[in-house]
Amino acid sequence: MKALVYHGPGQKSWDTVDDPKPTEPTDVVVQIDTTTICGTDLHILKGDVPAVEPGRVLGHEAVGTVVETGAAVSALRVGDRVLVPAITSCGRCPYCKRGMPSHCRAVGGIGWIFGHLVDGTQAEYTRVPYAETSVHVVPAGVTDEQVLFLADILPTGFEVGVRNGRVGPGDVVAVVGAGPVGLAAIMTARLSGASRLIAVDPVRSRREHAARFGADDTVSGGDELVELIASGTPDGLGVDVAIEAVGVPETFELCTEVVRPGGVVANIGVHGASATLHLEELWIKNITITTGLVDGTSIPTLLQLATAGKIRSDLFGTHTFALPDMVDAYEVFAHAGEHDALKVVITRQ
Amino acid sequence: MKALVYHGPGQKSWDTVDDPKPTEPTDVVVQIDTTTICGTDLHILKGDVPAVEPGRVLGHEAVGTVVETGAAVSALRVGDRVLVPAITSCGRCPYCKRGMPSHCRAVGGIGWIFGHLVDGTQAEYTRVPYAETSVHVVPAGVTDEQVLFLADILPTGFEVGVRNGRVGPGDVVAVVGAGPVGLAAIMTARLSGASRLIAVDPVRSRREHAARFGADDTVSGGDELVELIASGTPDGLGVDVAIEAVGVPETFELCTEVVRPGGVVANIGVHGASATLHLEELWIKNITITTGLVDGTSIPTLLQLATAGKIRSDLFGTHTFALPDMVDAYEVFAHAGEHDALKVVITRQ
Amino acid sequence: MKALVYHGPGQKSWDTVDDPKPTEPTDVVVQIDTTTICGTDLHILKGDVPAVEPGRVLGHEAVGTVVETGAAVSALRVGDRVLVPAITSCGRCPYCKRGMPSHCRAVGGIGWIFGHLVDGTQAEYTRVPYAETSVHVVPAGVTDEQVLFLADILPTGFEVGVRNGRVGPGDVVAVVGAGPVGLAAIMTARLSGASRLIAVDPVRSRREHAARFGADDTVSGGDELVELIASGTPDGLGVDVAIEAVGVPETFELCTEVVRPGGVVANIGVHGASATLHLEELWIKNITITTGLVDGTSIPTLLQLATAGKIRSDLFGTHTFALPDMVDAYEVFAHAGEHDALKVVITRQ
Amino acid sequence: MKALVYHGPGQKSWDTVDDPKPTEPTDVVVQIDTTTICGTDLHILKGDVPAVEPGRVLGHEAVGTVVETGAAVSALRVGDRVLVPAITSCGRCPYCKRGMPSHCRAVGGIGWIFGHLVDGTQAEYTRVPYAETSVHVVPAGVTDEQVLFLADILPTGFEVGVRNGRVGPGDVVAVVGAGPVGLAAIMTARLSGASRLIAVDPVRSRREHAARFGADDTVSGGDELVELIASGTPDGLGVDVAIEAVGVPETFELCTEVVRPGGVVANIGVHGASATLHLEELWIKNITITTGLVDGTSIPTLLQLATAGKIRSDLFGTHTFALPDMVDAYEVFAHAGEHDALKVVITRQ
Repeated sequence: MKALVYHGPGQKSWDTVDDPKPTEPTDVVVQIDTTTICGTDLHILKGDVPAVEPGRVLGHEAVGTVVETGAAVSALRVGDRVLVPAITSCGRCPYCKRGMPSHCRAVGGIGWIFGHLVDGTQAEYTRVPYAETSVHVVPAGVTDEQVLFLADILPTGFEVGVRNGRVGPGDVVAVVGAGPVGLAAIMTARLSGASRLIAVDPVRSRREHAARFGADDTVSGGDELVELIASGTPDGLGVDVAIEAVGVPETFELCTEVVRPGGVVANIGVHGASATLHLEELWIKNITITTGLVDGTSIPTLLQLATAGKIRSDLFGTHTFALPDMVDAYEVFAHAGEHDALKVVITRQ
Repeated sequence: MKALVYHGPGQKSWDTVDDPKPTEPTDVVVQIDTTTICGTDLHILKGDVPAVEPGRVLGHEAVGTVVETGAAVSALRVGDRVLVPAITSCGRCPYCKRGMPSHCRAVGGIGWIFGHLVDGTQAEYTRVPYAETSVHVVPAGVTDEQVLFLADILPTGFEVGVRNGRVGPGDVVAVVGAGPVGLAAIMTARLSGASRLIAVDPVRSRREHAARFGADDTVSGGDELVELIASGTPDGLGVDVAIEAVGVPETFELCTEVVRPGGVVANIGVHGASATLHLEELWIKNITITTGLVDGTSIPTLLQLATAGKIRSDLFGTHTFALPDMVDAYEVFAHAGEHDALKVVITRQ
Repeated sequence: MKALVYHGPGQKSWDTVDDPKPTEPTDVVVQIDTTTICGTDLHILKGDVPAVEPGRVLGHEAVGTVVETGAAVSALRVGDRVLVPAITSCGRCPYCKRGMPSHCRAVGGIGWIFGHLVDGTQAEYTRVPYAETSVHVVPAGVTDEQVLFLADILPTGFEVGVRNGRVGPGDVVAVVGAGPVGLAAIMTARLSGASRLIAVDPVRSRREHAARFGADDTVSGGDELVELIASGTPDGLGVDVAIEAVGVPETFELCTEVVRPGGVVANIGVHGASATLHLEELWIKNITITTGLVDGTSIPTLLQLATAGKIRSDLFGTHTFALPDMVDAYEVFAHAGEHDALKVVITRQ
Repeated sequence: MKALVYHGPGQKSWDTVDDPKPTEPTDVVVQIDTTTICGTDLHILKGDVPAVEPGRVLGHEAVGTVVETGAAVSALRVGDRVLVPAITSCGRCPYCKRGMPSHCRAVGGIGWIFGHLVDGTQAEYTRVPYAETSVHVVPAGVTDEQVLFLADILPTGFEVGVRNGRVGPGDVVAVVGAGPVGLAAIMTARLSGASRLIAVDPVRSRREHAARFGADDTVSGGDELVELIASGTPDGLGVDVAIEAVGVPETFELCTEVVRPGGVVANIGVHGASATLHLEELWIKNITITTGLVDGTSIPTLLQLATAGKIRSDLFGTHTFALPDMVDAYEVFAHAGEHDALKVVITRQ
């Protein structure tokens, strides 16, 4: 088959590789119908994720069709259309049983293995480990594009941003960073009943996307946010929830500044450096800070919402490619700003 | 002043009575700008609430203006526009401290005292006990009509239906009964992210209101609901949350039938008779049943949402009257079906 | 092998039957080291559980040793000592993923299948379906007796009584019924920080057991409980949590009477008849009623506590038998009152 | 009257000052029967809390007797024995209504005002603002010593450590720092059902106190803790909850290292400097970090537990003084290590 193969920092190509087979009784093989590219894939290509070895097929999000099943698979059948999520769950380790497969012990303590520790989804076929406890059958009547972004980005915004942040009806929420994952937080915070949703991003086109995804206010920088809060929240005390969706110390620290006493800072950003935590001010502030990798436990909920038309996850897909044009898709996604791209949708012809 | 006075079962009139004065240092007197009539007032007039004695001024919902303050009042001032809610809270008893003023010990164990144990709000003025811990200052920029129904009906639907029912994103919710309080549950369940919202009511005009307030499906009876669930929920197992908003045994029992294993039945209805609880079937079903009178603790949240335009509580007000025409307002509200009325809005000229 | 076989109402015997084999790749076969008898087994023998067909091996609780594994089993090995709990969990259906395997869809909607829909644990060997997602490896250093009752009774008292009842530090808790499952609720409510724990049972020896398991007060009947509450709780308002552990309408209704406004009634009892729910009084009382079958999700927690010596689950085992004397063990357990028995422990020689 | 007066950094004396009077209708005056000294008082004396002005009477914990009531006080009477807690609550601001009086808006945004912004409790009498919503009537049958430490230290350990840390049955908990507030966390974590409670402190006498207050393991330093976790928790992954009770960056950072993925770090320590938050490791770890000042909302619960004999808060009081010997009491408390002192109890003769 053909697949997008990583050949070390800066190098990738659309290669012919061996067809995958079930190697464990709990595996299935899925033909990829639709896949996408994640910001993490760009990090891998920069060499920032050393665990990814040359020769690895990239990608960790897909909608596809089951074409082969391992001996122990009884709940999935050949022909089933499934969502293959970023996180693999064995279903039996303490973390999976607790609903936290992001730390699945059976796959090494980090549930993200596709395109990382095993071959991924940017290919014609992929082998899916622990398939029955990991994938989701896609209901009839929804398109691939409507569910594709439930593989990673939408549950990330919802679980790590909105749920960890305990966003509920009436809350004033700031989302710092309006890239795809920030937009996912905005979309699902809106759904959760926020009364005022503020997006912060220095890039104008991103602020426009934020408004389209449901933000009430959009500001270009932290200073504007500080002013907006001073004038626009009760006693100027701060937002109920601040969601960090960038991944640098400055934006994290901004979140701890603008949250009100008793509020929550929910970190989604992938950080490469430590931040300063101003405990000399925060110790008395009764705040909660959360971090996390997505678990995907909300995917059934999000599938229900997407099927009912209550979330428009297809809005993320701004550019479409055929699978053999995967390298072109990378080109556009890597320069998303130039193309005003959010996410690319790559489909089998 | 003038006020609507109860004179025993079936009897009421718009009378001249003494002007209220602060009798405790924590009282204020409020001039009524806007008030309404509740289904409970009709129950009182039928003689169903024997604690209400002849001579009592009725009414427990209002927006008004502070005109006099007791000696201990420091946070409210003459001229403040305030929402007077159905529930009085002393702020210091164990129930008020726990956020459950519906059982405020200082006012006798039931926080509903206006138009019940003390004179109420269907008058030109009313004395408000424990004012600072009970009323809410209304923000500038919202009309009386936008906040009036936050005095009782909207927090009732939200707290006793939606919050007790733990409605969250993606839930399938049935609301049985689409009178005003059922519509309040529908409006706030929509806001909370329900994926599918089913209203059940035998009256066609109520089903139409339900659709206008946000229901996805409307059915006339329990049988239709049972069929809708059998065909329309995963494995036909039932709804995540069933909200009872009628107050008779049949509708309560219907709710316990149509809820899925692990789901919640939230009772809002005011019941006059006991129901049969089929524990021989329910003991194994892992369900939760909740009951409750409104606390009003969600009013700040609802005020925030109303001010931000995220809930349209003014939709409840279908008919408007001047205060001196209070008896006419009762006439219309008592025959709401004939007038296709939901709630009446009664304003000072 | 030998096993205790049900032959229809009133009939059972210790028979020779076929040795079990793995029939699915996710099965294991376990040699039974220690098992027990549950009140449910007595119900089956009375003919109260028609789903149990003649020829069925009874029993749904055991500690044993893995002797054979299906092809898909990788996390369990021959020789592992395991706790076989009452509830089977496929690990992949919506209910198992939500932590509610009591309603596991893969095994028919009720997670209790051992000694019910498939052969059980009162035998020399048993086949364990969905083994990796169902059983728990027993840590070294604890005896079989210390963990045997974590198969069913202790998690039942804890999950369905204490957790559903939201018992926390400081709570006043009434447990109505001091049979084994009531004692399990008492033991785990004590652990959860209850300030006052009241056991209600008409049988004196049971009240003595209740005191030994941690009750502060023991009373013989509901009237005594009502008096104790009137004099001994703040304003005589009632207990924070009432746990029903009998299974008849009278005790359930008692629980709804003695709970304070805002409190919780947690039903554990297995009911054969409906109860009257006095909604005409309860609608305004802000109470929560819960029902449920055990899930077993708390077993890892209880294992941790048993291993650390923080719970003394071995106290339940009052009589010991050898496996071939299973019929004698039934005789004693069926007449527990005469023998002052709580639970019997049956061990392989 | 006589009182302990702060005269600027390093200076205090037992002076004659004016008797306090109610200045607001919601005030009461309390005669101090028993008081204590807090570590915060030592910080003030070092000049670390510039908001405290010379001339201020120190102290924020007491049990006393109401001797005079303001005009609006109806629920408290002269002669009532009351616990005066560290935090003042107006009962009506948004923070007090939400159960977070640590940020009471009516008293300036920080609920701690005694011995800070108004005169405190190390005196013969003290004026108590917002008395009815702040103090707790002490039940008959408990001594002053049994409730005195419910004014601050015990609810601090419980609310900010144990509750924020979500300690529940079965949890493995590390408490870093075994001074008085760490011991309060240990005592209440024990009560909450922790399966293993590890105290970390370099001082041997403190480790001995920790064992007496309920710790299962005591270690002298973080390295020992790291080893204990590596060998003694499942897969060596870390503790469920790490409670910081020192207030320096090193111990905070230690807590973030030793907590397992999915666990909680609850900060109690008062910090004077910022810490480094290793987001490059923590972003993926699904942890929660909480901070906070005590609210005192758990005091009714703790009173219930102390009255029932379920917590032994009197264990904190190691040295006793008469009120006129307040300066001596400071001497002992300031050199607690030399005297093996935990807390001092100072009583009216």
